[in-house]
Amino acid sequence: MKNKKRDTGCPIAFALDVFGDRWSLIVIRDILIKGYTSYGELLSSEEKIATNILASRLKELESCGIISKSLDPKNRRSSIYKITKKGAELAPIIVEMMRWSAKYDSNTQVSKSLLTQIEDDRQAFIDNILGACPRTQ
Amino acid sequence: MKNKKRDTGCPIAFALDVFGDRWSLIVIRDILIKGYTSYGELLSSEEKIATNILASRLKELESCGIISKSLDPKNRRSSIYKITKKGAELAPIIVEMMRWSAKYDSNTQVSKSLLTQIEDDRQAFIDNILGACPRTQ
Repeated sequence: MKNKKRDTGCPIAFALDVFGDRWSLIVIRDILIKGYTSYGELLSSEEKIATNILASRLKELESCGIISKSLDPKNRRSSIYKITKKGAELAPIIVEMMRWSAKYDSNTQVSKSLLTQIEDDRQAFIDNILGACPRTQ
Repeated sequence: MKNKKRDTGCPIAFALDVFGDRWSLIVIRDILIKGYTSYGELLSSEEKIATNILASRLKELESCGIISKSLDPKNRRSSIYKITKKGAELAPIIVEMMRWSAKYDSNTQVSKSLLTQIEDDRQAFIDNILGACPRTQ
């Protein structure tokens, strides 16, 4: 994405320059919502991302300031990935995608109780995601 | 997108299967927010979409039930594109993208007054988009 920025000032184009592909937001979902922190965990996601695509998306997301990468203190040969504040603030977009997909995907995994939580207090649901995730600036 | 559906039931993957590319949501923006209805208008957008990509995205969005295509009664050789209810209900996702991009794009076109409108009454802002747009089921 990095080399293809449109830079028109349009907010939709700007957001798509960051995650407008089939995989970036899946990686963000895994780090932000599922709490995955390692390359291995991210690779194991059920959508079966290819390892070269995962590596490239992690680099792009890091360069966009959406995630941070650091050495795992428990295993200095591994990296841990964390969401940044900028990345965590994508949560409302993800929540709206959940609501829309829950309505239109006949195969949706979004449970009724999850949807009720969102409908009852959308902001609390978003705050909960933000509060649960370790973040870096 | 149509032939590459992941169908895992994940709401993020489902939404990305519909608009997870650099262009589909730009086309949706032009029809839903800018009110464009013709191929020529859509082609003229400032992001300079290529004509083959536009044609392919319009077909995909129609097959996903996001837009409808009909003959222009004023010019039977032209088509008019309209957003459907399913497409219009993407508005909250777009609004959240506007908020996020307004915060993080130093070059953003989102005006302070627009942002204030969204912050003051997000739902009214969304209802306004939905109300302003001619829709088909």
